[in-house]
Amino acid sequence: MVAPIVSLVGRPDGGKTTLLERLIPELSRRGYRIGTIKHHVHAFAFDTPGKDTWRHKQAGAVSVLLASPTGVGLVNDTDRDLPPAELAARYFTGVDLILTEGYKQSNLPKIEVFRPAVHEAPLPRDASWIAYVSDTPPAGDLPCFAPDEVAGLADFLEVRFLKGQTRQQTQLMADGVAIPLNRFTEDFIRKTVGGMVSSLRGCEKVRRLTLTIDLDPPAEG
Amino acid sequence: MVAPIVSLVGRPDGGKTTLLERLIPELSRRGYRIGTIKHHVHAFAFDTPGKDTWRHKQAGAVSVLLASPTGVGLVNDTDRDLPPAELAARYFTGVDLILTEGYKQSNLPKIEVFRPAVHEAPLPRDASWIAYVSDTPPAGDLPCFAPDEVAGLADFLEVRFLKGQTRQQTQLMADGVAIPLNRFTEDFIRKTVGGMVSSLRGCEKVRRLTLTIDLDPPAEG
Repeated sequence: MVAPIVSLVGRPDGGKTTLLERLIPELSRRGYRIGTIKHHVHAFAFDTPGKDTWRHKQAGAVSVLLASPTGVGLVNDTDRDLPPAELAARYFTGVDLILTEGYKQSNLPKIEVFRPAVHEAPLPRDASWIAYVSDTPPAGDLPCFAPDEVAGLADFLEVRFLKGQTRQQTQLMADGVAIPLNRFTEDFIRKTVGGMVSSLRGCEKVRRLTLTIDLDPPAEG
Repeated sequence: MVAPIVSLVGRPDGGKTTLLERLIPELSRRGYRIGTIKHHVHAFAFDTPGKDTWRHKQAGAVSVLLASPTGVGLVNDTDRDLPPAELAARYFTGVDLILTEGYKQSNLPKIEVFRPAVHEAPLPRDASWIAYVSDTPPAGDLPCFAPDEVAGLADFLEVRFLKGQTRQQTQLMADGVAIPLNRFTEDFIRKTVGGMVSSLRGCEKVRRLTLTIDLDPPAEG
């Protein structure tokens, strides 16, 4: 159930955030729940100095969460730069599509925002590029959308990532890494575990199970 | 593996946050990883207006995450006021103790911060109260620590919640609710699922498995 992830890439000041500000409402209007990930290469401050949660973090808490009836805010230390798929699996539930800014080194499908008025040339491209957003289509055979052609871009994302997708019902992470499951294995794990827990009190009508297991370290030898 | 949760409660301006600012470094020095949850009864702003992540959220993204090499910041819409145990299970990993501010209606173990100079009387108390922090011990038999007696309070928390605790190795959530497991069931689920996935590529030496399963709705009829 990890949502598809598409990354907006491009040289600075090309308008990635502005494009997202138009694309998110367009996709939301069509009924999709959108998550976003912004990649920073440096440490950052997310909270506001002086607030209670900020004071908790300053005092050395590794995870600080602000909870309200309508949402949560979380600041969490990590020991490394987690890849988008792991971030998505760990923190996002119930979103249909995840749009990221950055991660141009990843193998995520990419849409490059290219602005000939500001940029000399597009980024060096590989097989993960799926489209451009630009006034002037760069050479090549990829679809190109004008910056204000938001409905067209939303159509493209819908056909390619959202419509008629059969969602995998079982997601397995091993030490934070998503393990691919073929259809048989997925079905086997889902039915076995679903059956096993269905007799527990509180699990009779469960729709979503989450099981976290810490396994003993392998015996030395 | 959900960490124990202890809530600091008390009337406003009693010094809950100031106490946390002393207690978190004291417990961290002792090697514990501390998470905190601050409960707001109203909607809140966690991010800073104008930043890219703030713009994503304003545009209608339901989940916005800022990722860096050392940490993540997340703002996530929720459909209700999630209880602390669910927040902890969903968002916190690798913490040893969770300290919350608020949640005085919950059945979490509670430490009341009481300041006779500001407050007429302590809160009405129930069986979940485990200690007071106050200059003047309120009537009753519960331990009371002075506001600067931070080492003593840390000792109390250590003995009661941290030392010699055998951590449950399997955590099962059904639609976001933690399902209690007895020792036999915990062991059975852990060994069955651990064995089942151990033959999958990438799972040979796994230490922590996370399995999320969406079950089909029960057949109508």
